[in-house]
Amino acid sequence: MGLPLSGIRILDLSAILSGPYCTLILGDLGAEVIKVERPGTGDGARALPPHYFEGESAYFISINRNKKSMTLNLQSAQGKKIFHQLAKETDVVVNNYRPGVVERLGIDYDTLKKINPRIICCSLTGYGETGPFKDRPAFDLIIQARGGIMSYTGEAGGKPVKMGTPMGDFAGGLFAANGILAALYQRERTGRGQKIDISLLDCQISLLTYRGQYYFIGGEVAKPLGVGHASIHPLRDFKTKTFDVVIDCNMQNIFAELCNAIGMPELATNPKFNSRENRFYNKDELYEILEKVFATKTGEEWLEILEKRIPIGPINAIDKALQDPQVLSRNMVVEVDYGDGKKLKMIGNPIKMSEIDQEVFEPAPLLSADTEEILAKRLGYSPEEIAELKRQDII
Amino acid sequence: MGLPLSGIRILDLSAILSGPYCTLILGDLGAEVIKVERPGTGDGARALPPHYFEGESAYFISINRNKKSMTLNLQSAQGKKIFHQLAKETDVVVNNYRPGVVERLGIDYDTLKKINPRIICCSLTGYGETGPFKDRPAFDLIIQARGGIMSYTGEAGGKPVKMGTPMGDFAGGLFAANGILAALYQRERTGRGQKIDISLLDCQISLLTYRGQYYFIGGEVAKPLGVGHASIHPLRDFKTKTFDVVIDCNMQNIFAELCNAIGMPELATNPKFNSRENRFYNKDELYEILEKVFATKTGEEWLEILEKRIPIGPINAIDKALQDPQVLSRNMVVEVDYGDGKKLKMIGNPIKMSEIDQEVFEPAPLLSADTEEILAKRLGYSPEEIAELKRQDII
Repeated sequence: MGLPLSGIRILDLSAILSGPYCTLILGDLGAEVIKVERPGTGDGARALPPHYFEGESAYFISINRNKKSMTLNLQSAQGKKIFHQLAKETDVVVNNYRPGVVERLGIDYDTLKKINPRIICCSLTGYGETGPFKDRPAFDLIIQARGGIMSYTGEAGGKPVKMGTPMGDFAGGLFAANGILAALYQRERTGRGQKIDISLLDCQISLLTYRGQYYFIGGEVAKPLGVGHASIHPLRDFKTKTFDVVIDCNMQNIFAELCNAIGMPELATNPKFNSRENRFYNKDELYEILEKVFATKTGEEWLEILEKRIPIGPINAIDKALQDPQVLSRNMVVEVDYGDGKKLKMIGNPIKMSEIDQEVFEPAPLLSADTEEILAKRLGYSPEEIAELKRQDII
Repeated sequence: MGLPLSGIRILDLSAILSGPYCTLILGDLGAEVIKVERPGTGDGARALPPHYFEGESAYFISINRNKKSMTLNLQSAQGKKIFHQLAKETDVVVNNYRPGVVERLGIDYDTLKKINPRIICCSLTGYGETGPFKDRPAFDLIIQARGGIMSYTGEAGGKPVKMGTPMGDFAGGLFAANGILAALYQRERTGRGQKIDISLLDCQISLLTYRGQYYFIGGEVAKPLGVGHASIHPLRDFKTKTFDVVIDCNMQNIFAELCNAIGMPELATNPKFNSRENRFYNKDELYEILEKVFATKTGEEWLEILEKRIPIGPINAIDKALQDPQVLSRNMVVEVDYGDGKKLKMIGNPIKMSEIDQEVFEPAPLLSADTEEILAKRLGYSPEEIAELKRQDII
């Protein structure tokens, strides 16, 4: 059937990370994503050090494949006019400006829906478009810190650290994609678009889930647990003779399997450890026993013994993770063709759908790579008009 | 227009976390989610210690609101028959069993699409339904460890720690929801459903983004950075006279604003610090200067001085995060009515859509709360037939 979002057109005003991650997901699913960038510099991510390929930053490349790029000075009347012309046949507009910017530029939802009542506008902002903090600046780190998850990420008894990957931005991008897809679905029934207001902070709060509920019900304030868990045992890292391994034996049958595999079947029926609840209250004693067991063999040996029986794994550095045979077998490392025999490895698309017969991965666009084609073919601008727009720094 | 997924019916076979988080998102958007649970015990999350409310675990309550519950023994012929009857008028089936289980139970996509060609089946598994690891067990911690993000989460120079919130599961749930919504959208055009195969490991790999690209292009293997960043400076935590604050001044104008606000405007034009690239190579010197500055005032004073000018924030513990005025103003803490005057606070829905006039939050269901109504009203079973199903432990 082809890609599920084939035919969907997105104008993407967003930069750096949260918005581009949202449109990366939608682009991988077949939407046509046109990055609308500031003439001259474009998305600030294009210049982020320290790694570059073919003149673009690795950072930019990683989250902007399967997109087109056009430049447009939205502060000019002519630039706004072109944006409105494009909006007429666009399904979705994404931005991650501060609140109020699209209104000042005259490209807000209320304006665009008069041009195209089917349009869907999604904003991603640090704090959302409403509330006392709406005008304050915020990026990923601030959101991770204010949202609470940082306060319980870190070594037990240690200081808070951030999630290594910028989940403040990525959670926002993932929720925004869900909102946009839900709005596209609803539009099929109603014929009308709508506005979606994603706050990165709201998304962090959603991810508190049960730790939030533990606070509401039990007053418990989450603290860093290193590799451990608030409710589930045994679930942790263990030292071996070589590298550390992690295990998660949260279900009774899996715990019993672990006990059998380490030659201590009696542990599973021991009244101290024979249920989740009992393991919770006697976890220190259980961990002392298991620490001694895991110290007796190498990590390689433990993986060999346990890998098919219980959830266990190494803590992979990024090189190992990206060479993992399972990861490779799932097409999660793809090679993108840059022409002239140049190829670049990239991370693949995790949404595997049976009706996608062929995943498509095009390189991230050079700044303004598609401006002329879009103006000429889609809007009918002549070469002279395009040259004039360039002279005026509108594109 | 009402909730965007109003009228969509989901049979949710999933338990604990990744699948239930996916259907939490879809339920908040208006889908009818029926949890199909094992008679007697149900979803294992119902019994997770240590906090309970009205007999259910806080853990379960936090991710199962806006859902119905029916019990069904899928290993019995009668249970399978009932599932097939329900599947006839169901849009989506979600499961997070190990690969092969739905096939053994006779409720796999190939079987169900013969009953209902419009059905969409989504599985969430640790490693996916294909590849050399497909039959191995895995939960969140294993996925965080094997996927690579853990290896660069932690204090600089310290040992890896997990992301405090189970992002292995939640990323899977978020991507699954995106896949399901894309399939629902595509079905509007094709009339056909499809199968979605979400691997939690694939989702972790997607979240490596630019750190993956840094490895592919520059060979750089990410290491824990505490609160810091690989490319952007100044971005970190700073000690004050009271609590630590975090700042993120990744854009030149924001960095200049910081320099002005701390009375050192010359920093912004100093050739060592006057661009992202220069700050990257001279970050140690810059941090030494800023550490001294932040140590001169309290956290409260710095927030007061800087909060409107640059991205800055406290590292909120979960109690503070859930009392944050911005969070409250966005309806991210909601009160759910448990009847008899009992109310429970829960976390709200972060997908704010303009056509949702009224967000709806119903308590998580007691085990089997809706079995009889579904059997009677939807499938036409008589009270006698239902009693017989109970006697045979099929429901």
